[in-house]
Amino acid sequence: MGNAIKIGICGYGNLGAAIETEITKNPDMELAVVFTRRDPSGLKVKAGTKTAHTGEAADWKSKLDAVILCGGSATDFPAMGLDFIKYFNTVDSFDNHDKIPGYYESMDAAAKAAGNISIISAGWDPGLFSLLRLYSGAILPGGHTYTFWGYGVSQGHSDAIRRIEGVEKAIQYTAPVAAAVDSVRRGENPELSAGQKHARICYVTAAPGADTDKIINEIKTMPYYFAGYDVTVNFISSDEFDEKHGRLTHGGNVIHTGRTGDGNSQVMELSLKLDSNPEFTGSVMLAYVRAAHRLSAKGESGARTVLDIPPALLSCMDYSELLKKLV
Amino acid sequence: MGNAIKIGICGYGNLGAAIETEITKNPDMELAVVFTRRDPSGLKVKAGTKTAHTGEAADWKSKLDAVILCGGSATDFPAMGLDFIKYFNTVDSFDNHDKIPGYYESMDAAAKAAGNISIISAGWDPGLFSLLRLYSGAILPGGHTYTFWGYGVSQGHSDAIRRIEGVEKAIQYTAPVAAAVDSVRRGENPELSAGQKHARICYVTAAPGADTDKIINEIKTMPYYFAGYDVTVNFISSDEFDEKHGRLTHGGNVIHTGRTGDGNSQVMELSLKLDSNPEFTGSVMLAYVRAAHRLSAKGESGARTVLDIPPALLSCMDYSELLKKLV
Repeated sequence: MGNAIKIGICGYGNLGAAIETEITKNPDMELAVVFTRRDPSGLKVKAGTKTAHTGEAADWKSKLDAVILCGGSATDFPAMGLDFIKYFNTVDSFDNHDKIPGYYESMDAAAKAAGNISIISAGWDPGLFSLLRLYSGAILPGGHTYTFWGYGVSQGHSDAIRRIEGVEKAIQYTAPVAAAVDSVRRGENPELSAGQKHARICYVTAAPGADTDKIINEIKTMPYYFAGYDVTVNFISSDEFDEKHGRLTHGGNVIHTGRTGDGNSQVMELSLKLDSNPEFTGSVMLAYVRAAHRLSAKGESGARTVLDIPPALLSCMDYSELLKKLV
Repeated sequence: MGNAIKIGICGYGNLGAAIETEITKNPDMELAVVFTRRDPSGLKVKAGTKTAHTGEAADWKSKLDAVILCGGSATDFPAMGLDFIKYFNTVDSFDNHDKIPGYYESMDAAAKAAGNISIISAGWDPGLFSLLRLYSGAILPGGHTYTFWGYGVSQGHSDAIRRIEGVEKAIQYTAPVAAAVDSVRRGENPELSAGQKHARICYVTAAPGADTDKIINEIKTMPYYFAGYDVTVNFISSDEFDEKHGRLTHGGNVIHTGRTGDGNSQVMELSLKLDSNPEFTGSVMLAYVRAAHRLSAKGESGARTVLDIPPALLSCMDYSELLKKLV
C-alpha cells in the first residue's frame, strides 16, 4: 500500500467513526491517524487505528495526503479548518449554507498561503444536491428547483426536543409533504413555505409523571424549529424507542422542472434514500479526498467546492475504463 | 450582444431545430449560422437565421465560438466531427456507447492538432446518466448501477417497424418494467437481461388490406430490436396516430444501490421525465457549449467528456452567486 492515499480523520463522532469503516471499501486509500481534541488514549477506535491529539497535527505534516474534517457542529469548522489547512489538504462537509461564502473565502486564502487544497461542503446537501441544482439550472434556464429533505432524522431538531423538561429520549423525523412533492413533479411551480414542504414527526420518551400535554405544546410552538410546521408527537416507551429509533436514516430529493419549445415539460430529479446519513456523508467525503489529493499532486492550491471538481477525479478507475464503462 | 457566445449548428433535423429555439433561453448565447449538407436556401429555419453549406465551414473560422454537431445518426459523427474540429470548438451527443473510446481518441488527436476543444457525448445518455454512474460508483464502491430507459420513444425501434411491409406509420415506446425497477430500488441487486428491464409498446397504422398477424410476428421476432422483449403491438387509425403520437417524449432512471457499515442500504437515483427528447438533449449540449468556450478561452485543447468538465463551467452565474445560491 505504499502508493495508497494516506488519510487523517479529525474528530471522532458519528461521522469520523463512519469514515474509519468506509475507508476500507477503497483499495487506494488507507487510514493513517485519527486526530481528537479529547485524550487520544481514551478514544474507542478500531483495533490498529492510530490516534493523536489535534495539537500534534504539525508533526504529521508530509505524512498525510489529506485530512477529513469531521467537526461536531458548524461552529467547529472555521477554527478546525484554518488549523489543519496549514499542514494538509482537507475535505469537510461544512453545512451552514448562509456562511459558506465566508468560509470559502477564509479557507481559500489559507489554503493558497499553505499551498494546499481545501474542498469544502462536500457531503450530500451541500454537496450532491448542490450539483443537481447547478446542472439542472444550467441545462433548463428559467426553470424551478425544489429541495426536499427526508424521510429522515434531523439531529438538530431531536436535540431541541431533548432540551424540554420532562423529555428523556427524543428523535425527530423530517418528512417531505407528499402533495407538495407531487405538485412540484407535475411542474406546477407551487409557492411553498418551509412548513408546506415538510412535516415533522417526533417520537418521545417522557419521564415518569411528566406533563405530556405541556411537552407537546412546547414542541409545537418552538420558534424556527417547529412553529409553522405540521408536527406529530408520539409518546413511546424507552424500550420501543431503543428498538425502533436507533438509526440515523435520511435522504431527500432535488427536483428541477423547466419548459422547452412550446411549453414541453422537462423534469430532472435526484433522490437519495439513506439508511445511514453519516456513513453516506463519509463516503462522499472519501471520494472528494481522492480529488483533493490529485489536484494537490498537480500543484494546485486554494479552496474548492463540488462545483469545481471535474467528476473523473473522484473515481479510481482509469480514464480508458471510464470511457468504456461509464460514459 | 458583442460578448455573447457565437454558436453554429451543424445539421437541421429535430435536434438542430430544437437547439435553434433553446439558444434564445440563454442570454449569453447567440445563433450565428446553421450548416447543412442540403441546399441551404431550402432549409425551413426561423426568420433571421443564417444558413450555410457545410462545405463553407472554413469561411466561418474565427467567427464562431463553438459548433454543435447534430448528426442524424451515429455514422454521421466521425466524419462531421473531424471536419468541424479543424475550425471550431465542437459539442456533440455521439451516443454509440461501444464506439465512444475510438471516437474520443480520433477527436482528441484532431482537436489537439487544431488547438480546439471537442466535448463529445454530451446529451443525457451518454451525458447526465454517465455522470450519475460515475458519482455513484465513486461514492459507493462495490455497489450496483442500473440504467432504465423510458417511458419514451425509441426512434431506432420506430424506424425498424416502419421498414416492415404493410406498415404505414409506427412508433415504439420503451417502458421500464416496474417490478424490475422496484427490485433494484429495494437493493436486491437482481440479474436482469435487457428484456427483463424493458418492455416495448408499439402503435402501428397498417396499410389497407395488410396482414396484421404477419406484421405482429415480424415485429416480435425481429432480432436484437424486439426478440427477447415483452412486446405489445396496437393497431390504430392514421388519425389517432397523428393525434396521440406526435411527441418525442423520453426519460429514464439511473439507480445505484450500495451498502455501508454493517449492511446499511444507500440508494442514489437520477430520473428524467422529458416531454421532448430533442429539446432536452439540445439544452444539455448548450450548457456544454458554455464549458467548451471557456476551456478554449483558457487555452486548453483536446477532447473532453462530461466526466472531465468542472460543473461550474456550465453555469452563467458568477462564482460568488453559485456559492451563495446553489452550494
